[in-house]
Amino acid sequence: MAGLSVRSVLVTGANRGIGLGLVQHFLRMPKPPQWIFAGCRDPKGQKELQNLASKHPNIIIIPLEVANPASIKAAAAKVGEHLGGSGLNLLINNAAILKVTTLDTETLEDMSEVYTTNTIGPLLMAQAFLPLLKKAAQGSPSSVLSCSKAAIVNISSSAGSITSLYIWDIFQATSYRCSKAALNMLSKCQSLAYKEHCILCVALHPGWVQTDMGSFPGQMPPTTVDESVQGILKVLSSLSEKETGAFLDWEGKVIPW
Amino acid sequence: MAGLSVRSVLVTGANRGIGLGLVQHFLRMPKPPQWIFAGCRDPKGQKELQNLASKHPNIIIIPLEVANPASIKAAAAKVGEHLGGSGLNLLINNAAILKVTTLDTETLEDMSEVYTTNTIGPLLMAQAFLPLLKKAAQGSPSSVLSCSKAAIVNISSSAGSITSLYIWDIFQATSYRCSKAALNMLSKCQSLAYKEHCILCVALHPGWVQTDMGSFPGQMPPTTVDESVQGILKVLSSLSEKETGAFLDWEGKVIPW
Repeated sequence: MAGLSVRSVLVTGANRGIGLGLVQHFLRMPKPPQWIFAGCRDPKGQKELQNLASKHPNIIIIPLEVANPASIKAAAAKVGEHLGGSGLNLLINNAAILKVTTLDTETLEDMSEVYTTNTIGPLLMAQAFLPLLKKAAQGSPSSVLSCSKAAIVNISSSAGSITSLYIWDIFQATSYRCSKAALNMLSKCQSLAYKEHCILCVALHPGWVQTDMGSFPGQMPPTTVDESVQGILKVLSSLSEKETGAFLDWEGKVIPW
Repeated sequence: MAGLSVRSVLVTGANRGIGLGLVQHFLRMPKPPQWIFAGCRDPKGQKELQNLASKHPNIIIIPLEVANPASIKAAAAKVGEHLGGSGLNLLINNAAILKVTTLDTETLEDMSEVYTTNTIGPLLMAQAFLPLLKKAAQGSPSSVLSCSKAAIVNISSSAGSITSLYIWDIFQATSYRCSKAALNMLSKCQSLAYKEHCILCVALHPGWVQTDMGSFPGQMPPTTVDESVQGILKVLSSLSEKETGAFLDWEGKVIPW
């Protein structure tokens, strides 16, 4: 394991749950990133993130709505300004939404809204931040693909595994499953298209985590945010060329598509 | 092989390519369906289909825009009227669109439009026609799942296989690939949700076919519409409970997700 050492990272949906956990764990690293860009939709309302940022000047809160191309463009410009001439090492597409629906109750509007945030958002984010990711890859002394050099990490879900249809009996959410299967496809496409730029791309299942999103009536998710995030960071630190395009869980296990 | 024997079938996108080929091959069966519902967006402009319908009273052209819930509802009502008290045996979700894009040139609008037609459309179609499919299943003497009893066939694509990323080098089309991976997920969800109603659900890759959609500059697709459609119908005739939820090609081979 090479260890994870990034100068800059951007996490979307950084105001709560796994996104906020990632920001907290980046801060606790032996050598924390110089820039932790914390993207969230409504910065003013995010007390916990605001509080953290007030104590840690390396956290920069970025207003970001991943379903809105104009917001993404503005965020990329702002991040670029902060970075000056240097690139962005790590883009973590974590922002996502979930509608607890059954197959019978899905609507065009729900299907569309979930896909826009969970699948189109990560595509547009990667497009907009590609110049900064390329710059990081070019500026890195290592010739090997890694998350310390330049990487796109798409937070997916084993609910998006067509093979397993994880916990279908308690959770149909076809709009969410379809968006995550499509996100897995996107990750694979990105891994092929961006390999020439030395950018590593993976889809990661963070576990079934004790967050607002992961909690349904009568169900207690088995994994805490801390366990999930620790696992994710350990996995990220271990990735190299052979994992680009893979679908892994927070313990590093390969998940079937 | 049990042989395919359906009283009623609905094909979306029936005005050309594989959809039109399916209608023609249903007509040529030893015992053609009593009702062949040919869904298409703009019936007036479809000379070939209109000509066919003028000679074969069992073809009923249905105005249908699968990206429009109101159009789907109207189509379901019209089909129900024709069927009187009987059900619909076979729903073939064939209508699809393709934008020949690269990962760099995808937009929110293209991603959204392709997903709406290719993934949300088949979901809404199945919801709207579920009462008629259930009726067919209940009215069938056989206890075994089959396409002759009641089935949803989603025309997918091996371009939607995350495992293989079929012909990526000549065809990126991430919007299309994501929509088809999501359609595969939908098919799997439908197979689980509709099994209790005895409705078989599959995703089918029709081959790389000589149609308007399949033709790119400098590339000749290897498979004719006739070969593809003959293969599809042979595969449909062979399906039973163990194939529900599967992803197969027009020769019956299993495609990895």
